[in-house]
Amino acid sequence: MKCRVCRKPAYIKLPAHNAAFCPEHFDAFFLRQVSRTIKKYRMLPPGARVVVALSGGKDSLVTALTLQRLGYEVLGFFIDLGIGEEFSLSSRRAVENFCQQHQIPLHIYSVQERLGRSLPQVTRKQDRICALCGVTKRHLMNEYALATDAYALATGHTLDDMAAALLANLMRWDLHYLARGLPVLPPEPGFARKIKPLALQGEKEIRAFADLHGIDPTTARCPYASQAKFKRFKAALEALEEQSPGLKRSFYEGYTQQAHRFVEASARPPKVRCLLCGFPSASPICTFCRTWRKEAAEKLEPKAKP
Amino acid sequence: MKCRVCRKPAYIKLPAHNAAFCPEHFDAFFLRQVSRTIKKYRMLPPGARVVVALSGGKDSLVTALTLQRLGYEVLGFFIDLGIGEEFSLSSRRAVENFCQQHQIPLHIYSVQERLGRSLPQVTRKQDRICALCGVTKRHLMNEYALATDAYALATGHTLDDMAAALLANLMRWDLHYLARGLPVLPPEPGFARKIKPLALQGEKEIRAFADLHGIDPTTARCPYASQAKFKRFKAALEALEEQSPGLKRSFYEGYTQQAHRFVEASARPPKVRCLLCGFPSASPICTFCRTWRKEAAEKLEPKAKP
Repeated sequence: MKCRVCRKPAYIKLPAHNAAFCPEHFDAFFLRQVSRTIKKYRMLPPGARVVVALSGGKDSLVTALTLQRLGYEVLGFFIDLGIGEEFSLSSRRAVENFCQQHQIPLHIYSVQERLGRSLPQVTRKQDRICALCGVTKRHLMNEYALATDAYALATGHTLDDMAAALLANLMRWDLHYLARGLPVLPPEPGFARKIKPLALQGEKEIRAFADLHGIDPTTARCPYASQAKFKRFKAALEALEEQSPGLKRSFYEGYTQQAHRFVEASARPPKVRCLLCGFPSASPICTFCRTWRKEAAEKLEPKAKP
Repeated sequence: MKCRVCRKPAYIKLPAHNAAFCPEHFDAFFLRQVSRTIKKYRMLPPGARVVVALSGGKDSLVTALTLQRLGYEVLGFFIDLGIGEEFSLSSRRAVENFCQQHQIPLHIYSVQERLGRSLPQVTRKQDRICALCGVTKRHLMNEYALATDAYALATGHTLDDMAAALLANLMRWDLHYLARGLPVLPPEPGFARKIKPLALQGEKEIRAFADLHGIDPTTARCPYASQAKFKRFKAALEALEEQSPGLKRSFYEGYTQQAHRFVEASARPPKVRCLLCGFPSASPICTFCRTWRKEAAEKLEPKAKP
């Protein structure tokens, strides 16, 4: 296989794009692809400030590097949840090294330091930890994006993540998620704009881009992640993709043109402002505050069950 | 495993229903399931006359037997397309034997006798044969259902067929088919009501019901069917079903509640009446007549390309 552009030996073959590239032209191709996604879905105006939620994994680090290379003002944000002997520490180190190397400003939020407890200290129920981890990260990411006056909050969700979640949500016709599976969610009062710049890039490309730029993600796995989310849906799509390269992308891209069909159905009860943090909430005290500010929450709402 | 009802040894285990049955109670279960599908989607009023399109395969034969057992007036209809040395002949024999055994009136339409040619004589292009086979069968089935004043035309599509087609149509967001993937299509001028009474029954159940009643379908395979339609989508669903029994059914049943979301998009150019047969058509002469009544069609529409 040779590079589609210069005919040098190929560094990567991309059947979904019916193309192969040398390192130099793959780099340009990848940036061009993400740039098109950003324009297509009107994620960011040129040069905008964007908070990138960094986990220490390759996807979020590639998101940050790509946005920086495309001329955006990237602010890194890492949440240290105090998970495991190794997990949070190793993730934090990967993020710190990456940001230092690429001169990306990094803000670290340690729940132990700021909220007095680590995530595993909040609940003893293993299955609650994953739910509360999501609640916590969403709350803190949103808060930070609003505080920094960033145009948007970017996460490292990939095409594989988006397509697998879409398939799972179609299997059960979950209209709320079907309405919200888009690569860009507009800002609402109390909520930052949320963008997924890698929503049309496959894992293979992202891994190749990470390797190309010497990105060194954490290899530690969360001890609570019993198995990757949507794993079997990813496997089903992978099998279909092998027979029809490009299927995953046209499936997800096609959905983004049709998502409005599900919007009417996603109406949820109106949000109020949480009495403790002031952010939008479905109940007088939000789940984040009921979890992390238990004593204060119980004073205001004695029956609140965290 | 024991029968859920009488605790006798089980004849069949149905993980999707979290149940197992002896032959007697499986028979009752199967009939009850199909009866519920018919009621849920308002396919047929009690005792209605229904034409069942019989191919000689197990699915259509089971459809006919089930509808007969549920008290409907079943008219069998078989189209002899003159395919292969063995295929059409063996299919015809299976249908004739079945109808004789169950005292179901059978109408056989031989294209050779009625239209002067077999299907393979109509075109030399292999890939055209499958398309024209569909056109021909749809036309003749519809014509017969209307001629007999039947309440509906039933076909033997199974849950596996419907769910696989749905998945394939979702993968490419084919709105026309997404609007029309329902187990019942209401009658329109020139079109009979179309129903799929086995739309919520899996292949395994259907095969077990066929075996139980000594149904002897043809084993011949169409020489033009290079591979089963939607095969890879069936395989993908099968893999997901194994991990979540019942997923296929909830996926397809859920869709039937949401199909209206796709309806507006399925608007097609208005139909005219075919100058030769009088049935609704997208052009002055329908594809059926352009195919089978070539000389007459060319006199009326000299440039017509069959």
